[in-house]
Amino acid sequence: MTTRIHKLAIFGVGLIGGSVALALKQAASVGEVVGVGRSRANLDTALKLGIIDRIATTTAEAMQGTDVVLLAVPVGQMAALMREIAPHMGAATIITDAGSTKQNVAELMQVHLAAHLKNCVPGHPIAGAETCGAPAARADLYQGKNVILTPLPQSDKTAVAKVRALWQACGAKLSEMSFAEHDAIFATVSHLPHLLAYTLVDMIARRGNADMLFDFAASGFRDFTRIAASSPEMWRDIALANRPALLTEIEQYQASLEHLREMLATEDAAALEAMFKRAQTARVRWPGK
Amino acid sequence: MTTRIHKLAIFGVGLIGGSVALALKQAASVGEVVGVGRSRANLDTALKLGIIDRIATTTAEAMQGTDVVLLAVPVGQMAALMREIAPHMGAATIITDAGSTKQNVAELMQVHLAAHLKNCVPGHPIAGAETCGAPAARADLYQGKNVILTPLPQSDKTAVAKVRALWQACGAKLSEMSFAEHDAIFATVSHLPHLLAYTLVDMIARRGNADMLFDFAASGFRDFTRIAASSPEMWRDIALANRPALLTEIEQYQASLEHLREMLATEDAAALEAMFKRAQTARVRWPGK
Repeated sequence: MTTRIHKLAIFGVGLIGGSVALALKQAASVGEVVGVGRSRANLDTALKLGIIDRIATTTAEAMQGTDVVLLAVPVGQMAALMREIAPHMGAATIITDAGSTKQNVAELMQVHLAAHLKNCVPGHPIAGAETCGAPAARADLYQGKNVILTPLPQSDKTAVAKVRALWQACGAKLSEMSFAEHDAIFATVSHLPHLLAYTLVDMIARRGNADMLFDFAASGFRDFTRIAASSPEMWRDIALANRPALLTEIEQYQASLEHLREMLATEDAAALEAMFKRAQTARVRWPGK
Repeated sequence: MTTRIHKLAIFGVGLIGGSVALALKQAASVGEVVGVGRSRANLDTALKLGIIDRIATTTAEAMQGTDVVLLAVPVGQMAALMREIAPHMGAATIITDAGSTKQNVAELMQVHLAAHLKNCVPGHPIAGAETCGAPAARADLYQGKNVILTPLPQSDKTAVAKVRALWQACGAKLSEMSFAEHDAIFATVSHLPHLLAYTLVDMIARRGNADMLFDFAASGFRDFTRIAASSPEMWRDIALANRPALLTEIEQYQASLEHLREMLATEDAAALEAMFKRAQTARVRWPGK
């Protein structure tokens, strides 16, 4: 097996897909990159910026002679895209994705790519996505960042190795785990905080004095709510795709918040300080600070 | 009335108090700045950095000939400090503070500075406080930032004008409101987010797989939880000082979060997206982004 990719087809040439293309080109780990997408203007930009070498106008054209396919589209578009791609999959074509939730992608692959499961390798690069579109793509986006692969029971070892090699060429740190473990982890550290931030901003925005409240909000509020500026469509899809794990997290957070409310209601200064202290210690120790 | 301050006594020469001193000196709006504090090392640093002109070792010495007193200590130390200062207040000495909650400061002034209420002007500069101590002080900390004064019913107009002039010389934007309005606003836009961030980090830190969870947390988590690195003692005091308003905010947030949980539990995609969209629109429009 060669780790170099002969032809890579990227469906969705935005921040995520475009950055993979730039990183692989910089590492000389790819021959040709073909881009497919719903916005012709974005593809033209990607071509002009040297992110892709060619625009494919049909799926058949994109898939012709392709050894690796990357699905870098919102979770909600995965099913339709897999259905479209399936008839064009070659015997050795490897397919991976960059979706934020993994159980749903695994299930969709089982349904729509049933004849090609040994070459299916779901993945999730953990890299910022506040900006979007091809112009946001950067060759160093994945440098030192975590990428998690959640191989299917049917995934072939060589297919997994090829996808690992793709991300390693991008500079990423690779992990493998089950989709269930992945989805539980990200429900806690990513999906829940997004929902909590949306909830606070919406609660304030619906008030009669919202303008004045926003006017006095300062840097703490700015950082806490930055993720509430994320795409509503994308987060609707993520929340629904990871519903069971996310519901569990919301319920645990509700219990924790109720416990805090009780400490405050009963003026339990020592318990409040102990809880704030535990959180502060953990947050200050966190290497990602 | 002259807006220039002859002698300013700052109790607590940290980020907040020290930055006032530097700003007033830069604006040539103060004659002498005297510093008082619990840490001799910090005061020595402040003196060396030119933040204060002199260290006062007794309250009597600090108050001698002082026309403006600034209390820039944690909320929990205010009562003891007011009791100590009261006997040394001159007939024209004006006293203000920089506490994050205002009802409690107003009440403490009514109790401990009862003979001087016309010269009492509670205030709150809205400026970051993640760093602390004299070395963190900067002359431009308040440039363009909001400062809210919550005068007492007894506060004299000339005293209020003098405190306004102090903050204007620091470059701040002044507002006046009641302490009740102030405390309600900051319960919403500052105190509640701090408690929500502490709650999430503590919930994660208490789990058996906390290390792995923190390991996969990324930039969204980083920003959302930055305020959970704030001082536990300070936030214990703020939470308790603003207990009634904060309990109301927690309860409203609990209701909002429960509503979100229900939308997710019932897979109401349209309602989820509409809520995320309202929040996103408000957040993107916010000028402080």
